[in-house]
Amino acid sequence: MINGRMVLLIMGLLLVVEGAFMLLSSVVAAIYGEYDLPYFLWSALICISIGGVLSATNYKAEKNLGKREGYIIVSMVWVVFSFFGLLPFYLSGAIPSFTDAFFETMSGFTTTGSSILNDIEALPHGILFWRSLIQWLGGMGIIVFSLAILPLLGVGGMQLFVAEVPGPVAEKLSPRIADTAKRLWVIYVLYTVVETLLLWVGEMNLFDAICHSFTTMATGGYSTKQASVAAYTSPYTQYIIIIFMFIAGANFTLSYNALHGRVRKVFKDEEFRYYFGFVILVSVLVAGVLYFSGDVNNVEQAVRDALFQVVSLITTTGYATADYLVWFPTLSIIMFMLMFIGGSAGSTGGGIKVVRIVLLLKNAYFELKRLIHPNAVIPVRFNSKAVSPTIITNVLAFIVIYMLIVGVSMIIMSFMGYDLNTSLGAVATCIGNIGPGLGEVGPAANFAHIPDFGKWFLSFLMLIGRLEIFTVVLLFSPHFWKN
Amino acid sequence: MINGRMVLLIMGLLLVVEGAFMLLSSVVAAIYGEYDLPYFLWSALICISIGGVLSATNYKAEKNLGKREGYIIVSMVWVVFSFFGLLPFYLSGAIPSFTDAFFETMSGFTTTGSSILNDIEALPHGILFWRSLIQWLGGMGIIVFSLAILPLLGVGGMQLFVAEVPGPVAEKLSPRIADTAKRLWVIYVLYTVVETLLLWVGEMNLFDAICHSFTTMATGGYSTKQASVAAYTSPYTQYIIIIFMFIAGANFTLSYNALHGRVRKVFKDEEFRYYFGFVILVSVLVAGVLYFSGDVNNVEQAVRDALFQVVSLITTTGYATADYLVWFPTLSIIMFMLMFIGGSAGSTGGGIKVVRIVLLLKNAYFELKRLIHPNAVIPVRFNSKAVSPTIITNVLAFIVIYMLIVGVSMIIMSFMGYDLNTSLGAVATCIGNIGPGLGEVGPAANFAHIPDFGKWFLSFLMLIGRLEIFTVVLLFSPHFWKN
Repeated sequence: MINGRMVLLIMGLLLVVEGAFMLLSSVVAAIYGEYDLPYFLWSALICISIGGVLSATNYKAEKNLGKREGYIIVSMVWVVFSFFGLLPFYLSGAIPSFTDAFFETMSGFTTTGSSILNDIEALPHGILFWRSLIQWLGGMGIIVFSLAILPLLGVGGMQLFVAEVPGPVAEKLSPRIADTAKRLWVIYVLYTVVETLLLWVGEMNLFDAICHSFTTMATGGYSTKQASVAAYTSPYTQYIIIIFMFIAGANFTLSYNALHGRVRKVFKDEEFRYYFGFVILVSVLVAGVLYFSGDVNNVEQAVRDALFQVVSLITTTGYATADYLVWFPTLSIIMFMLMFIGGSAGSTGGGIKVVRIVLLLKNAYFELKRLIHPNAVIPVRFNSKAVSPTIITNVLAFIVIYMLIVGVSMIIMSFMGYDLNTSLGAVATCIGNIGPGLGEVGPAANFAHIPDFGKWFLSFLMLIGRLEIFTVVLLFSPHFWKN
Repeated sequence: MINGRMVLLIMGLLLVVEGAFMLLSSVVAAIYGEYDLPYFLWSALICISIGGVLSATNYKAEKNLGKREGYIIVSMVWVVFSFFGLLPFYLSGAIPSFTDAFFETMSGFTTTGSSILNDIEALPHGILFWRSLIQWLGGMGIIVFSLAILPLLGVGGMQLFVAEVPGPVAEKLSPRIADTAKRLWVIYVLYTVVETLLLWVGEMNLFDAICHSFTTMATGGYSTKQASVAAYTSPYTQYIIIIFMFIAGANFTLSYNALHGRVRKVFKDEEFRYYFGFVILVSVLVAGVLYFSGDVNNVEQAVRDALFQVVSLITTTGYATADYLVWFPTLSIIMFMLMFIGGSAGSTGGGIKVVRIVLLLKNAYFELKRLIHPNAVIPVRFNSKAVSPTIITNVLAFIVIYMLIVGVSMIIMSFMGYDLNTSLGAVATCIGNIGPGLGEVGPAANFAHIPDFGKWFLSFLMLIGRLEIFTVVLLFSPHFWKN
């Protein structure tokens, strides 16, 4: 039996928390004195009262939480948060279409960053703040929510950790999960504050610095400018954002180690080394092609444009300082391929994740070795430990299902009349939680022109991608519901 | 130590055989009395004398053949055959560029079918016959060559069987490989004769019927018409070709069973059932979209166009009766995806192969089951037998390396200025041994406009694809050359 009351209790408490963050946004609205203030208060009231009623009526639920309840809560929270989180956009009229408001909110909470807005600067500050805040909340997402809040309820959250921590290898930071969550939260907040200050020192005002820090650390990619980060032309600002995108795309436990002086441990981490090496390698390649193809005539700018776009896509942030679709064709192909890599496990990045790609490539390499030495036992190693075949088959299954979903989704998008590039780009960027795609949804365009059905469908892909597929697929499997 | 003399002996004998087939083409040239006759005789002379010298000087080689010698011969024979096989095209001036002649010949022997010819009908009959014949020879390729010729030399060819039989599961037809090879050869010839007669009864003349039968059974796709099979508008001809393409894309051991009255065994074969079901399913979908999108206004033609294009691409034949790039966008996306499936193992088809795709999907499905029942042992089954994890990791490695090669090759093609569609389409169609691609190399276009470097590179991809990657990759691996 599924403990439905416990699920409702937790959802109720989480809704109250969402309402509290709306109240925070209402403070921003009040400071700027714009028209959005009352709508934040109404939205917060709705969240807190419904959440309150849910919590109060289920307060006496049995405090046990199984794997299935964990899966259900993790999958539901994004949907519920998005339906309530769209209220400020929708009630204030900032986004008049309900579908658009849902798309924008789901794109926020899943830290995707695909947008339907055609005139971002016209929106009031409270709305822009809320839009960035939902990415920030989504970024650490259920890692922190489930690890900090659920243990407070006195229930073991380890089952959620299994369901939610991105990537197949979840190194335990500390045996006590609530502690872990709080430590990661502190690091997350710390980075956000430091980035805000560094951006504020540059050409951004405090408001824009806060909003961009929110969406950098979440690898979300929402900007307060229609032109994205391209609106800020100073190399300083762009380099700061590159550095923090890179940090946000790395495993947060590494940041924890680094901040405690264990820097060597960071560079001993195999996923990090591949992540770092790959970013450098691809950026050098892109910078070279940018310069020698004549797309960019200045070496520093070629390096900066390359680094920015490469880091933005591999970390699945999705900011843009250039339109890669108008670059030399090789570069848009490279950018497209980056969409299938994604950040590190344990980061806020989406996508397939560096560790999975590395395991896959290593397995392929060792398979060749095995072909020549058919009797030798050659296990794949990661971080000096042998990786069990079970993990390899799991990674394989993940990627197969990921690609299968991409394939079927492309076909669904194409029914709306979109060509291969646009269909593939929209699907890859949404399931990878990136932001911009290819063709008609490239970095210089947006998702406003997609029909309503397509927006709901892409929102669903964002959710699937954010929950690393298995969680959601399981919910639709009849096996899951059998006792 | 690699037994180099034995390698040279076998290559010599094979060259003599190639020369003999050139003499066969010279008969066709003589019948039509066109200008290509002397060039066939010269080419045959060159092949037979070089082959003869190689065989004669290495006649005393030790008659032992290891795995490595097997790999080397299999990989080399396509290159050597292509370099000699281009002689009639090049010497006669039918294809004035050496690069083009090599591309066309490699595309023939690998049964790819991508062409650089802009005016096929202008060529003499001998040349057209040779062009079809090299596909026919390539089609059963080294399966037959290595199984029929090598045992005649008194050496066990089983190691070649390991290196060459397409697909991971090689069911033994008979313990005696020479027998097997001869039986498959008989079936192959039989099908070719039957198809020739059936096509001849229709609107084709005998010459065109023979040439198209050659390239159907090889899943090659070279046509004697610039417009490909679209030049033959009668539904009868198109249906005949659909049926034989389908047969050629199925495992030949199934044909052996069927022709011996064991039809039930055919439908019990799991790969065949997926292959059959998938063709029907996708064809129905394509026919539906074709009809309801208004691309084709006639139900019978919609079904026929769908079946033809679907079967042509999944079997990697590459004939066309319609330009799928001008169809409703969904359809060109489906056609593109078919390029990544390929024929059955043990067929003349290229690509990834149905069995690998099925194993991958099954593994993914079972992984989901395992997630819910983490303690249950749930092996993947194929043809009612449990598939060992070793085979699954091997299949995984195959597909990863395949996709990696596609990715890197796309980038290399894009350096020549081709966009995503053309780069991806050219690479996918060449490594999959299909024929037509996307964009500027679609079914209504050809490969003439590709720069020389690109043609050599794509020829290499055809070879890699034909040899199912591992064989070629191993040759470039330092491990391979260590004792």
